[in-house]
Amino acid sequence: MNTLANLPNKVKIVEVGPRDGLQNEKQSVSAAVKVALVDRLSRAGFLNIEAASFVSPKWVPQMATSVDVMAQIARRPGTIYSALTPNMQGFEAALASRADEVVIFGSASEAFSQKNINCSIAESIARFAPVAQAAKEHGLRLRASISCAFGCPYQGDVPLAAVADVVGRMRDLGCDEIDIADTIGVATARQTQAVMLRAASEFRIEAIAGHFHDTYGQALANIYASLEVGVSIFHSSVSGLGGCPYAKGATGNVATEDVLYLMQGLGIETGIDLDMVVDAGQFIARQLGRNGASRAGNALAAKCADVAAPG
Amino acid sequence: MNTLANLPNKVKIVEVGPRDGLQNEKQSVSAAVKVALVDRLSRAGFLNIEAASFVSPKWVPQMATSVDVMAQIARRPGTIYSALTPNMQGFEAALASRADEVVIFGSASEAFSQKNINCSIAESIARFAPVAQAAKEHGLRLRASISCAFGCPYQGDVPLAAVADVVGRMRDLGCDEIDIADTIGVATARQTQAVMLRAASEFRIEAIAGHFHDTYGQALANIYASLEVGVSIFHSSVSGLGGCPYAKGATGNVATEDVLYLMQGLGIETGIDLDMVVDAGQFIARQLGRNGASRAGNALAAKCADVAAPG
Repeated sequence: MNTLANLPNKVKIVEVGPRDGLQNEKQSVSAAVKVALVDRLSRAGFLNIEAASFVSPKWVPQMATSVDVMAQIARRPGTIYSALTPNMQGFEAALASRADEVVIFGSASEAFSQKNINCSIAESIARFAPVAQAAKEHGLRLRASISCAFGCPYQGDVPLAAVADVVGRMRDLGCDEIDIADTIGVATARQTQAVMLRAASEFRIEAIAGHFHDTYGQALANIYASLEVGVSIFHSSVSGLGGCPYAKGATGNVATEDVLYLMQGLGIETGIDLDMVVDAGQFIARQLGRNGASRAGNALAAKCADVAAPG
Repeated sequence: MNTLANLPNKVKIVEVGPRDGLQNEKQSVSAAVKVALVDRLSRAGFLNIEAASFVSPKWVPQMATSVDVMAQIARRPGTIYSALTPNMQGFEAALASRADEVVIFGSASEAFSQKNINCSIAESIARFAPVAQAAKEHGLRLRASISCAFGCPYQGDVPLAAVADVVGRMRDLGCDEIDIADTIGVATARQTQAVMLRAASEFRIEAIAGHFHDTYGQALANIYASLEVGVSIFHSSVSGLGGCPYAKGATGNVATEDVLYLMQGLGIETGIDLDMVVDAGQFIARQLGRNGASRAGNALAAKCADVAAPG
């Protein structure tokens, strides 16, 4: 028989539903609902919650409420509340709102970078230098999110060397944590391992996070494959908040409940109460007037017992 | 870094949608629709399709049409068309309908066996002896499905020794293939490997199949984990046909499209045309008047490109 890889004993789950998730939902929700969601997640035990985005409200209407959210949440000591900050204006807002961590971003795909922001990857990252420097000066944690690390809607394949290059650039800006994101959900397990191992050649694997989308149903397999190569930070979205803005019915971010169910089964510590997350997921799904997109969440909520037929 | 296990180069996918899947859908579909579905799956390249169930139509109304289905499908040379046969009456019907393989079943859970059929596991399997013998005499392939191998809705945990025992009993009946089924979808990756390795202590791993449900979102991770320990046969259901009869909105059988997408990404040969399976999945979902439950199927059908926001 084959030799099985060792898995980490403990992982950090970064809950991205309140920001990344809700930003990609069709309906916008009020600051009060966002606060209620973040507070439920804080109580469930998350050590890191992506709670706000200080981009221009003109671009992303749901984020106009970020100031209110950050002002009104009940902060749990020890929990990091993160905010997306595309520029110095955003950084100042994040600082004023007492964000614990600011998030900058870049793409591993040259085509994606050119198409979306009309400049090269290298230029786009260089523009974050003042934000990175300001974060350091103010003692804020700095995280970088690298999109399209496993595939790009415009160029298709993304070379490992391109991932390594952008990880190196983010490291050089002084990032404390770097997310390797499968923005369009196309990765499969062995590719995931190859990309993570290559990223780990440029940055310490203890501070590399896997951000997977379940668009093709692969996210849990990719997370398991990442654990096998030593990744111990994962992003997920309660109730599968997010969805795919370009395809009705397709899913986006991997659901937190599914990830926690996996970790529980593997005996890996997260410090998070799954039942409370299921409740939080049911809460936000009700607010959005739709069913939850977490399989484990729905099954646990319904206490499913599929006992009818053989097989 | 850890050492990665080798994966098989080639797997067999057993398509169970037309029988196991449709049997657990609320609506029944006509023989004509089932025939159209099976024919689409045959053309897509499956080497094994579970097409019929010769249980009493009184128990499972959808299966009343099995005789018609088996008479009308366009059989692809080399493809095995399987039928569930609970007793000799069912076996005779399967034989008359020219099934290539008959499927018997038992549970790894004593509580499940007692609760569902009011006898012990050992007794329930012994009752299949005449079916097994008849299958051998008539040169039919014999497959056994072992339910609740990873957990039971009544007793909870199922000991590894119980799985090994029932695998041994099925082997002794002369089975050509044995399915290890996660009937309620509760397994996670490492448990999957432990159960598969224990089953392999009683039966050749080349003829052991993994039958996973996606109720808690774990099926793809469990399939990947099974590949790592050498399992090379998997059951799946086109468009995720099946569902969980006891929990609205919960999912049942893993979707074939998701499994094929994984295998394609891993470079593992299946001989099956994914695009044709996506079309078959869209066809049957339309017939049932609902959305498909395959994430890869939905994404491929919608040609999803989730490119809006970073992350």
